[in-house]
Amino acid sequence: MENEKKQVPMEIISAYSKRKGFIYPSSEIYGGFANSYSYGPYGAEIKNNIKNMWWKMFVSSRPDIVGMDGPILLHPKLWEASGHTSGFNDALVDCKECKKRFRADHLVMDLTGKDMEGDLEGMTKVLQDPKMKCPECKKSNWTEARHISMMFKTEMNAYEGPVYLRPETAGAIFMDFKNITDSLRVKVPFGVAQIGKAFRNEIVARNFTFRIREFEQMEIEYFIDPEIDWEPLFEDWLSKQKEFYNRLGADDRDLRQYEHPKEKLSHYSKKTIDFEYNFSFGWGEVSGLAHRGNFDLTQHSEYSNEKLEYFDAPNNRRYVPHVLEPTFGLDRAILVSLVAAYTEEELEGGETRVVMKFPKEIAPVKIAVFPLLKNKPDLVEKAKEVFTNLSQKYTCEFDDNGNVGKRYRRQDEIGTPYCLTVDFDTLEKGTVTVRDRDTMKQETIKLEEMDKYFEENL
Amino acid sequence: MENEKKQVPMEIISAYSKRKGFIYPSSEIYGGFANSYSYGPYGAEIKNNIKNMWWKMFVSSRPDIVGMDGPILLHPKLWEASGHTSGFNDALVDCKECKKRFRADHLVMDLTGKDMEGDLEGMTKVLQDPKMKCPECKKSNWTEARHISMMFKTEMNAYEGPVYLRPETAGAIFMDFKNITDSLRVKVPFGVAQIGKAFRNEIVARNFTFRIREFEQMEIEYFIDPEIDWEPLFEDWLSKQKEFYNRLGADDRDLRQYEHPKEKLSHYSKKTIDFEYNFSFGWGEVSGLAHRGNFDLTQHSEYSNEKLEYFDAPNNRRYVPHVLEPTFGLDRAILVSLVAAYTEEELEGGETRVVMKFPKEIAPVKIAVFPLLKNKPDLVEKAKEVFTNLSQKYTCEFDDNGNVGKRYRRQDEIGTPYCLTVDFDTLEKGTVTVRDRDTMKQETIKLEEMDKYFEENL
Repeated sequence: MENEKKQVPMEIISAYSKRKGFIYPSSEIYGGFANSYSYGPYGAEIKNNIKNMWWKMFVSSRPDIVGMDGPILLHPKLWEASGHTSGFNDALVDCKECKKRFRADHLVMDLTGKDMEGDLEGMTKVLQDPKMKCPECKKSNWTEARHISMMFKTEMNAYEGPVYLRPETAGAIFMDFKNITDSLRVKVPFGVAQIGKAFRNEIVARNFTFRIREFEQMEIEYFIDPEIDWEPLFEDWLSKQKEFYNRLGADDRDLRQYEHPKEKLSHYSKKTIDFEYNFSFGWGEVSGLAHRGNFDLTQHSEYSNEKLEYFDAPNNRRYVPHVLEPTFGLDRAILVSLVAAYTEEELEGGETRVVMKFPKEIAPVKIAVFPLLKNKPDLVEKAKEVFTNLSQKYTCEFDDNGNVGKRYRRQDEIGTPYCLTVDFDTLEKGTVTVRDRDTMKQETIKLEEMDKYFEENL
Repeated sequence: MENEKKQVPMEIISAYSKRKGFIYPSSEIYGGFANSYSYGPYGAEIKNNIKNMWWKMFVSSRPDIVGMDGPILLHPKLWEASGHTSGFNDALVDCKECKKRFRADHLVMDLTGKDMEGDLEGMTKVLQDPKMKCPECKKSNWTEARHISMMFKTEMNAYEGPVYLRPETAGAIFMDFKNITDSLRVKVPFGVAQIGKAFRNEIVARNFTFRIREFEQMEIEYFIDPEIDWEPLFEDWLSKQKEFYNRLGADDRDLRQYEHPKEKLSHYSKKTIDFEYNFSFGWGEVSGLAHRGNFDLTQHSEYSNEKLEYFDAPNNRRYVPHVLEPTFGLDRAILVSLVAAYTEEELEGGETRVVMKFPKEIAPVKIAVFPLLKNKPDLVEKAKEVFTNLSQKYTCEFDDNGNVGKRYRRQDEIGTPYCLTVDFDTLEKGTVTVRDRDTMKQETIKLEEMDKYFEENL
């Protein structure tokens, strides 16, 4: 049972997310739009909570990391220098019978279990076998596997030639490296962090919000002295990444590290390790950590003719720093938090309770405030007063609809840690009833102790 | 003097922003990119602070408003329904001599002082006058004024035909109206709020970050009963908008309302009022409030064949709500906060101090922590301990570089409200020195009272 919980199928999470206001299919009234999604009211709160948690954990609370926020549309030369213009491709194959389009390496993996990413010829050859049937029409008649760019292309007034929607946020950090080191007193090792949208024109979007074309990344470039022993820092980043997923609610047994084999690493990378989460469709990458050497700064320096170096004044040394790159997918982090939180509990009497066991920091609503009865103006007024007071500090919800048991159930379904009921005792004795989401226990507390109670518990 | 402050020229703000790490020209190592900008470390903090302030003010603290977060790439049918595909154009004119491109209505306004927006023929005629010289090459040889779409166009796998980068965030709110009313217990009047990027392919980007092609909006659609008296609600929104700009640091005398004349209003709008701020280049729009009737929901309902209605259960009425739309430009809000904060003060002795007088809520760094001397390990260690403690709660900066006077000056320049120095008294008597940015007064406080001190003051 406890083990099953995590394997809740994506269709259930997706339908539940829509019904409860976490995530809707985007553009649904127009028949949907290419598997894109929209965060509803509770999803938007979770997204903000995760962003704030990440920023606090990796930027505000650290003396060695600063933030930035660059544009999505950047100088196209950046993508030449980074290799994206020529090399950021996916392998595509079409079924000639039903015209359905597939990502070739995913198709070959599904059909044969083999990872042939990058090997166009090999994949084309494998698909010539008549046993390799189209998952849609069950025939076997494939085009050759070929590459297409994953970058979205557009045009901009005041610039001639194609402009791209950034396929990752990291590029802007390297481009601003000089401005950051010129305007701030940063000392190696230091990091630059950014949260923002990135766009990849995936051939197939799938697995709910796991693989989407427009997504949000949280990335850090952590610049280090090329001559130090980088391995302890790399290990430290791994443990911080793990801590982050634990704080989203992920159990250790649902997290694993995947180290990219040496022969698959880019020539400049010393080591790359992904974190994967145990989703119902299999283990899926949720973050990565790469040692990228000085590849990026060197490339941008070459393409821009600007020196991108760091001056170590005390030692009178000038060098191009190496970089460790921890990167996190924000939409995937949200997905992890939803999957990890989703719980069906059998109650006494056989009833099933669905409860989203979000960590308190992540929960979209922290406290729900109820008047015991909606037709008692005294109670309603007092409850509104309590709501107004608490909502200056916490995201709260006011609910006077139906009986209190039903209201508890509704709050369980969106993962609200505390429900607070204003009843006749509130008017007479100045006490309220606070109910805990996980234990379902109720506690009576004094109104004047309410602030302290939530300060300690939230 | 006090009056001059606000009129600080945009070139000064822009150069200062670059030098101090607020805002850099984007892609600068590649020669810049079409007047786009990147928020540096302090700019990114201000942006987050303003977003959080707005969200708290208009979403979290209100029982009647929920948030959402939709994609930038939306179903193109949305923009047909909203009128953007056919009607979201700017008037363009080229100088045939120097090939420089202008927005026709801005050019005519600059040359004649007349607002001829929308009147292509009239503008073409005016520019035939040989006195209408190109501001670049000083000749007079113009093409006809013509319309071009302001929407950025791209293509997406799995969808045939052009796809647009959203030119405003509001569209996604109307598209999710049905999902939101189905999944949440919202009761009219209620609002849906969203913060996110929007893209307009401006012919000319200018005035620093005031007119840029990629920008961020904070929008609310506030749904109301079509039969109520909407004017008090409209007034209430105006006062809330004003309060928002005041909280950014804007003085009343630098804010004014501009009511769109009846004859220029869209047929569906009952009233539209902009807030304008007194920038050095003139009054510029920073937010708007429009009564849009039921135009949007009706259009989307027609184009999608979905009923977009609200059911008022207690009164058993079903209707299409009207909508008030308060919208705020986030980049312009940041610009207001920079312009309003920038202050040059003459000190005794003739020295000039530049200080960013941000409201505390907006300031990118709240507390700077200094050890009095950097070569005393006891002091440095104690200061780091204080920093670690405070930075769990506030964005702090640690600085041990140069003498304390210079460090104060550096923090003034980025607008840090408090500097805290750990000195020998800290080790002996457990006290620290706290210096106030605006008064420049120093105060000695006990370490154990530090938390309380900042809780009260921040």
